[in-house]
Amino acid sequence: MSDVSSYLMCLWGVRGHHLHQRWHFCITAKGCPSQTWDSGLTEFTYESALPALLWSSTNRLLALRSATMLLLHRAVVLRLQQACRLKSIPSRIYIQACSTNDSFRPQYPSLTFCGDNSSTRGWKVMGTLLGLGAVLAYQDHRCRAAQESTRIYTKEEVSSHTSPETGIWVTLGSEVFDVTEFVDLHPGGPSKLMLAAGGPLEPFWALYAVHNQSHVRELLAQYKIGELNPEDKVAPTVETSDPYADDPVRHPALKVNSQRPFNAEPPPELLTENYITPNPIFFTRNHLPVPNLDPDTYRLHIVGAPGGQSLSLSLDDLHNFPKYEITVTLQCAGNRRSEMTQVKEVKGLEWRTGAISTARWAGARLCDVLAQAGHQPCETEAHVCFEGLDSDPTGTAYGASIPLARAMDPEAEVLLAYEMNGQPLPRDHGFPVRVVVPGVVGARHVKWLGRVSVQPEESYSHWQRRDYKGFSPSVDWDTVDFDSAPSIQELPVQSAITEPRDGETVESGEVTIKGYAWSGGGRAVIRVDVSLDGGLTWQVAKLDGEEQRPRKAWAWRLWQLQAPVPAGQRELNIVCKAVDDGYNVQPDTVAPIWNLRGVLSNAWHRVHVFVAP
Amino acid sequence: MSDVSSYLMCLWGVRGHHLHQRWHFCITAKGCPSQTWDSGLTEFTYESALPALLWSSTNRLLALRSATMLLLHRAVVLRLQQACRLKSIPSRIYIQACSTNDSFRPQYPSLTFCGDNSSTRGWKVMGTLLGLGAVLAYQDHRCRAAQESTRIYTKEEVSSHTSPETGIWVTLGSEVFDVTEFVDLHPGGPSKLMLAAGGPLEPFWALYAVHNQSHVRELLAQYKIGELNPEDKVAPTVETSDPYADDPVRHPALKVNSQRPFNAEPPPELLTENYITPNPIFFTRNHLPVPNLDPDTYRLHIVGAPGGQSLSLSLDDLHNFPKYEITVTLQCAGNRRSEMTQVKEVKGLEWRTGAISTARWAGARLCDVLAQAGHQPCETEAHVCFEGLDSDPTGTAYGASIPLARAMDPEAEVLLAYEMNGQPLPRDHGFPVRVVVPGVVGARHVKWLGRVSVQPEESYSHWQRRDYKGFSPSVDWDTVDFDSAPSIQELPVQSAITEPRDGETVESGEVTIKGYAWSGGGRAVIRVDVSLDGGLTWQVAKLDGEEQRPRKAWAWRLWQLQAPVPAGQRELNIVCKAVDDGYNVQPDTVAPIWNLRGVLSNAWHRVHVFVAP
Repeated sequence: MSDVSSYLMCLWGVRGHHLHQRWHFCITAKGCPSQTWDSGLTEFTYESALPALLWSSTNRLLALRSATMLLLHRAVVLRLQQACRLKSIPSRIYIQACSTNDSFRPQYPSLTFCGDNSSTRGWKVMGTLLGLGAVLAYQDHRCRAAQESTRIYTKEEVSSHTSPETGIWVTLGSEVFDVTEFVDLHPGGPSKLMLAAGGPLEPFWALYAVHNQSHVRELLAQYKIGELNPEDKVAPTVETSDPYADDPVRHPALKVNSQRPFNAEPPPELLTENYITPNPIFFTRNHLPVPNLDPDTYRLHIVGAPGGQSLSLSLDDLHNFPKYEITVTLQCAGNRRSEMTQVKEVKGLEWRTGAISTARWAGARLCDVLAQAGHQPCETEAHVCFEGLDSDPTGTAYGASIPLARAMDPEAEVLLAYEMNGQPLPRDHGFPVRVVVPGVVGARHVKWLGRVSVQPEESYSHWQRRDYKGFSPSVDWDTVDFDSAPSIQELPVQSAITEPRDGETVESGEVTIKGYAWSGGGRAVIRVDVSLDGGLTWQVAKLDGEEQRPRKAWAWRLWQLQAPVPAGQRELNIVCKAVDDGYNVQPDTVAPIWNLRGVLSNAWHRVHVFVAP
Repeated sequence: MSDVSSYLMCLWGVRGHHLHQRWHFCITAKGCPSQTWDSGLTEFTYESALPALLWSSTNRLLALRSATMLLLHRAVVLRLQQACRLKSIPSRIYIQACSTNDSFRPQYPSLTFCGDNSSTRGWKVMGTLLGLGAVLAYQDHRCRAAQESTRIYTKEEVSSHTSPETGIWVTLGSEVFDVTEFVDLHPGGPSKLMLAAGGPLEPFWALYAVHNQSHVRELLAQYKIGELNPEDKVAPTVETSDPYADDPVRHPALKVNSQRPFNAEPPPELLTENYITPNPIFFTRNHLPVPNLDPDTYRLHIVGAPGGQSLSLSLDDLHNFPKYEITVTLQCAGNRRSEMTQVKEVKGLEWRTGAISTARWAGARLCDVLAQAGHQPCETEAHVCFEGLDSDPTGTAYGASIPLARAMDPEAEVLLAYEMNGQPLPRDHGFPVRVVVPGVVGARHVKWLGRVSVQPEESYSHWQRRDYKGFSPSVDWDTVDFDSAPSIQELPVQSAITEPRDGETVESGEVTIKGYAWSGGGRAVIRVDVSLDGGLTWQVAKLDGEEQRPRKAWAWRLWQLQAPVPAGQRELNIVCKAVDDGYNVQPDTVAPIWNLRGVLSNAWHRVHVFVAP
């Protein structure tokens, strides 16, 4: 019952009654291992719930009174809580309903609602809840779609309706909907629906297939206000002089930090919805325009070792190497840079907490390909240099390198990846081939890979030698000596809070805190501590996500904590910090790790929220 | 010229003159790459140095006036600095002397003093400086020993003279010396001589062979006040019922945290004198009495793999494996626990900053020995369990384990060590054989190794499963679940200040700060930041010590910083923090990493000092 505000429940068995009718519900709460709460039956009347329903919104809801839907909104659940004298909300509640006062004898089938948001189940449950009324049921399954209006709107008009003041409009296909009153009822939470405000629903429904059900469309139909202007489908004009003109179309949920080159991150409320980040909202960090490569003519050039032979590999050639598939989290060195900026200005994109994502990558192992070109591990220092097929107007390609020892170590599992979550790589993520270096900063995972060579020194690329390095807070642009610091390879332990958001108002009673944690070098996250009081006291969060392999923990852990809000507290200073299996921890504050490029920002993540009275 | 207060210099060519005679010194400073100071010649008169000599002490010094010794004490060097208008003291000063005013034409051989304390050179230089007047030269090499007193003292009498108030006495052989007035003149610094106060010099001179020179003994002879009572040589009584009665004799410089079992650390002023810690002052962490093993009958039992054969290896057998030698820093998980105790009580020995030391270890590789017993790396989880030959009264031996993957990885360089700094292991450090697991917590380096086996699970030893684990600050002894945390293997990045000491008074002008830094898992220390203002501003320290191999940086870096003391500052809050090559950093404060066992104490190290007016 973690996210009670988003639970839309329906009592299938309750029908043929009006809202004003007196009701009894029999509520059984079970499955609270940490609670000693007795699983007895408690009486609860629908009437006492009604004001809460009204409070939660809306005339729209009352218009549905002929349906037997019951919205158990947060306030209702809190009343349940009071009624049942629960200390916190149990993880499982059975609800039965009857229409007489002699109660406790179920006259209708009962509904079991399980709020156990554990890992993969959690994402299925959340997926379900994201449906626009996915669990709604109608008494008679009649279509209650409102009569279609013939009013015509332009895209511009739609895009100007993105707030409660202007009204909140969305489109689906050619239809326009005013969902202003529905936003608060959205089972996935208002903030997630708001991501689509002023634009099409399709990109979001594509992420969450649960929306593609008839009753969801029926519900939506009630909010229809008109049609999109059919003449408004203007093909985007391609400005041929713009090197970025051929960049791919991106998902509208992405928060854009820079359009040219394109750099964008998923919003926090979507970031930790899924253990595997859907491709369309995987954070994108481009340094140059996205090349448009023909997979048929694509060739990857591997410079051979002395005595070995150079290779020119087609995609088919690459597929002929043994295929490996691993789940790897990528993080930009600049993730959470915006927090460093608050200390003192830095040069770089203002990433918030979303320059990190996780995918299942598949491809050939770099060590296998290098071996075929005659390369071997060697005692002396050597580096594998990668060159992308993206380039600036002077023809300079993006480049980076990793130590040969890592490249040749089968245990390091460095891939030449051609698949991302079972699909060919999206263009923004390196189609057709990119490097994936598990446990290492994103900057070395060179996209649109064109050339691989082994050199005695690191890549001479700007991004290897004059960027992506850490310095003391005392170093500024007048004194920096880039040669004095090693290039960032493995990243330090990191964590962040994705829910609630900074400045949000949370309900009193209980707060649910969610986030991610990850560490570089294959070091597993072993614990996340969460504080509600700025770091004075701590609670241990529950870690979700896949089992981590020792020394190969390449992927993040998602985590969450349900914690009672201390009585009388009007504000919370929520903090998280993670520990990896080398028992590395995050530093307390940002200023002492501040650096002129704003990289490696891994201080405790802090979120300040208000508590509703 | 880092530690100018301890530089005792001698101008070999200056002879036959008296202190009141007018002198000129030609001083050439060179080798300041970061200084633009011109290497010209500067005039400096001996007369201006004289008051400083008097200031630095002492009648004793004036009594030496017939010698041509010149003590260049801190104040003198500061005058040099003024005279030369140096911003800071150059790393190399050439001094020439003449007795006429027409100067600048050297009449005597010059003395070059090199204060470049880099790494191994640094330790040789410091060793030299630790001599009791090792660089003193006498005009005529006449023995100036004071007439021997025939007064007889007991050991007890000597041991009660350990402060300026009581007088500071030491012994050498059967002779007793009152060195009260010499302490401030000790080239290695007063604090190092004070370590021997009230007892014999031999254990310290054994560490620093430079003392064993005739002119050092001649100098010391002047301070002789009598002889030790010859009847005072009582053999130590052996209490046979005491399981610790057979423990070896330890070096008196060790700061003892527990006698039974013996646990002791070197004092900070000795800890970072040497890159390689001398065996007698290497920190000692025993869990049980020290076994007394016969190297001739010693056997190491290696349990064979299924299908392989078990081995019973004599020391000779072990020597027949290829010998590997590596420099490895060992750190106890409880190092710096005393700082955690200041937050809240913990269970454990009160280690200060000295539960860390570095040695050059030699032995057979564990992977070679395991391979001979038929073991191979395997995909499934497995652990190599070690059992010591030390045991408690119930016969339970000390035990620990490491993952098989590490044990079998040649790159991890796990040793079965039989040599420590070129000597057979001392008894306190595991004679005849111990495990050395580079980059891993000391507790896994099992001493007096008796048995090695490969198991599907970790060692069932108390020290593997019920100790040496980290927990959230919220976990106490009522709630701790030892199974919920992984055993500590790799340790997080660490650093500490060894000079100056907390509470010390430092000179205004410039302060020299020294310390160590290390990280687990072979991660190299890439930077140490030092703050004089509690962490508001930072300066980058100079890293000394051996070159670090990528991914195999098993040993610490010593570091130092010479920093001007901000004018008018009466106190300094000195802080250090290190960064490793995974860009892991130390946390700012202790409380958020507090844990009930007081392990993993790696917050910024802080030292508060006063500035002399």
